[in-house]
Amino acid sequence: MNYRMICRVLGLILLSLAALLLLPLIAGLCFRENVTNFLLTMGIAAALGGLLMLPRPRSRGLVARDGFVIVGLGWVLISLIGALPFFFSGSIPHYYDALFETASGLSTTGATVVTDIPGMPRGDLFWRLFTHWIGGMGVLVFLMAVLPMSGEHSMHIMRAEVPGPSVGKLVPRVRKTAMTLYLIYIALTVLEAVFLRLGGMSFYDALLHACATAGTGGFSTNPESIGGFHSLYIELVTAVFMLLFGINFNLYYLLLIGRWKDAAKNEELHWFLGIVACSVLGLAAGISKLYGSFAVALRHAFFNTATILSTTGFGTVDFTDWPEYCKWILLLLMFCGGCAGSTGGGIKLSRLMILGKAAVSELKQMVRPRSVERVQMDGKRVESGTVRAAFLFLTVYSFLLILFAALVSLDGFDVATCFTASLSCLSNIGPGMTKLIGPMGSFAIFSPRTKLLLTLAMLLGRLEIYPILVLLIPRTWKK
Amino acid sequence: MNYRMICRVLGLILLSLAALLLLPLIAGLCFRENVTNFLLTMGIAAALGGLLMLPRPRSRGLVARDGFVIVGLGWVLISLIGALPFFFSGSIPHYYDALFETASGLSTTGATVVTDIPGMPRGDLFWRLFTHWIGGMGVLVFLMAVLPMSGEHSMHIMRAEVPGPSVGKLVPRVRKTAMTLYLIYIALTVLEAVFLRLGGMSFYDALLHACATAGTGGFSTNPESIGGFHSLYIELVTAVFMLLFGINFNLYYLLLIGRWKDAAKNEELHWFLGIVACSVLGLAAGISKLYGSFAVALRHAFFNTATILSTTGFGTVDFTDWPEYCKWILLLLMFCGGCAGSTGGGIKLSRLMILGKAAVSELKQMVRPRSVERVQMDGKRVESGTVRAAFLFLTVYSFLLILFAALVSLDGFDVATCFTASLSCLSNIGPGMTKLIGPMGSFAIFSPRTKLLLTLAMLLGRLEIYPILVLLIPRTWKK
Repeated sequence: MNYRMICRVLGLILLSLAALLLLPLIAGLCFRENVTNFLLTMGIAAALGGLLMLPRPRSRGLVARDGFVIVGLGWVLISLIGALPFFFSGSIPHYYDALFETASGLSTTGATVVTDIPGMPRGDLFWRLFTHWIGGMGVLVFLMAVLPMSGEHSMHIMRAEVPGPSVGKLVPRVRKTAMTLYLIYIALTVLEAVFLRLGGMSFYDALLHACATAGTGGFSTNPESIGGFHSLYIELVTAVFMLLFGINFNLYYLLLIGRWKDAAKNEELHWFLGIVACSVLGLAAGISKLYGSFAVALRHAFFNTATILSTTGFGTVDFTDWPEYCKWILLLLMFCGGCAGSTGGGIKLSRLMILGKAAVSELKQMVRPRSVERVQMDGKRVESGTVRAAFLFLTVYSFLLILFAALVSLDGFDVATCFTASLSCLSNIGPGMTKLIGPMGSFAIFSPRTKLLLTLAMLLGRLEIYPILVLLIPRTWKK
Repeated sequence: MNYRMICRVLGLILLSLAALLLLPLIAGLCFRENVTNFLLTMGIAAALGGLLMLPRPRSRGLVARDGFVIVGLGWVLISLIGALPFFFSGSIPHYYDALFETASGLSTTGATVVTDIPGMPRGDLFWRLFTHWIGGMGVLVFLMAVLPMSGEHSMHIMRAEVPGPSVGKLVPRVRKTAMTLYLIYIALTVLEAVFLRLGGMSFYDALLHACATAGTGGFSTNPESIGGFHSLYIELVTAVFMLLFGINFNLYYLLLIGRWKDAAKNEELHWFLGIVACSVLGLAAGISKLYGSFAVALRHAFFNTATILSTTGFGTVDFTDWPEYCKWILLLLMFCGGCAGSTGGGIKLSRLMILGKAAVSELKQMVRPRSVERVQMDGKRVESGTVRAAFLFLTVYSFLLILFAALVSLDGFDVATCFTASLSCLSNIGPGMTKLIGPMGSFAIFSPRTKLLLTLAMLLGRLEIYPILVLLIPRTWKK
């Protein structure tokens, strides 16, 4: 393992964190707040980062393991240090709560333990929502976009940080890819902010909600989330952008270079849109009685489909009051998650498609053992390694889902609360499916131990499990 | 496809069913009841069986697909016709309820829709519990044991009917294997019946509870299940035998031929016993306050660990009153299920072990891409095909679990009831994890549509999914 190079990259991550903290600091200054908490944290991050960069690496080469370790440790570090501003200012009194909130932000989960949002300093609130934007595309992808890192080796980092079964053909030119992805990300964020501003949101709220949408996070500056703005326009804009950020960014890249047809032919996109349509209609049918009219039902059905499928987690109404089968439609969406290469979390649609297709082809093979069945996506054969990886992911994901649910139950909450808390954190969604932790509930109900567990679950979910798991196996650290 | 041969075997199955119905008929006669329902059903089964056997097969050869179709259709047929006695006698007034109860019996689930057990004719009650015994080892294994079927080809049938990732080395001599398995099965059943009789049960109750234990079913002649006998001895005997029937039968075969050491070295057995020990201690610690003493807590913890892990489903106390984390221990057991090659249902322990080992080895490989990792069980390498099959099974199982839960929710019950009803039926356990469908609850609460769905889930679970799924794909029926 190239320890010196790993330290160097971790140092870079901390320096970037210090730089990023400038933004909430400026926000705090604009609102004439005390910003000592940000100054202190920036100092710590910069000092630690500088220390880590002292040893000069003998070579710049990185292997797969190094990539995992950098990403895993990097995310743990920025969560630990990113939590300090909340703790220093006292806006979140307990450090474990601050850590939960920061990991929830960075992992773009959006589950919150803060109960008094209006009482939070505006700078802290800025940082809270801005972590979604940082976490959405990834800190390391950002580094690769702006710094001249050696191309081939950083591929291992990108692979470990960008969600989805495969990064596709964009991989070889890592730096260009990272820059392209970030430019699309920034452009879409700015676009949403403009739309929200036009809808009457303040500049501060519009920018932050655009950031939170971009990362498919779900924190809000309003204690009633998007529903608190009482505006159909704002709900629609947010819902549409949540879906846009749940789609594979490669498609936007294809659009940019004029390959419209290839983008339109994308199978995952068709499924994504199909699922949205079915879910909206299914939900609307179920809740139209509840809201008195089909139009209002459609509005809530569309918003909540978008918020759950994209794993964002903004809320407008309390869907835990909906009929049971509507809850299950949302639960099914929770299992899906966004598209590969989007900022959405969860198992990812394309992975489920690969699994479904592989299962069907195995079944066909069982019936006719001599026939040769192939798994295809977008007209191309899916390599057996990709299929295997998808099977492995689902297996580890299911194990962890059940394990975390069982551990959460030590707090004494009911089966559905434990199960959906685990699901929501592992898939980076935000709300669970019971009143206690639903859109109007809060994760503040859990014990410190459980909050730490769920913090781990959120990071595992965001990094698609392995970078964190790799840190925990002894073999990683053996010579 | 060899349609004529398939019809012939299906005919044989129905004739065996007619023969097996003699037993409840005799029981009914002993209690001087009206047995017209059994006579009628026997007539129908025999007539239909005779008809199916009319076309003379041109060849006796069977391919894999034929094996699946025979097993799938065979089980659907005996469920449909085995339900008739309850319907004809009126002891279960609706046919869909009778079908649910019969499929629950044959699949050894033990979920019941009968609310008035003492009011049932004794002949019907005999048939109800006896279906567990038939379903436990399998109708087709029985046929292979007693009839001179062509050896090599019937392997496909055995593979499709005997649960677990692989039937092991016993497979080649199918008939001898089937006979050995059945002899062990009969011997253990008789042994348990003797023990229960010695504990003060009537001959009728002892025999039937032994049958229900043997199949790891869970129906009882007592409306309060095993708890209704208020006897520590009976609870202990039942619990021990539930565990014995949850262990791979190959181990008993090894004991019989004197290979004690090989049996004792079995990895799955070690895990099985380890899980039992951990679960008993964990549960006892959690419920000792509830029952006032650790001894009583141990008693209930042991019985309920055995009943859930072996997927039997007998009840003594209502574990839905237990602390939440105890429920999750039981839920974890529900996901495990019995050992491969036992009569227990669920995902099966050895399959989970293969999955766990494969996941660890993939993770190690990720960290050191050049190292070669192998999955081993009992000191032997597990073939990659077996690993793949385990991954596939877990994937399809998870899909079905969530799908059935979502469909059950159309009845309007809460998330935990829907989820654990689906889990309980798919894993052939019996009780769910909420009051409504717990050990003291009943599946009678569900709508006819949901009962049919869960009937399908129980059969899918018992046959480990593929034989039923194969019936549903068009390719099976194409030339």
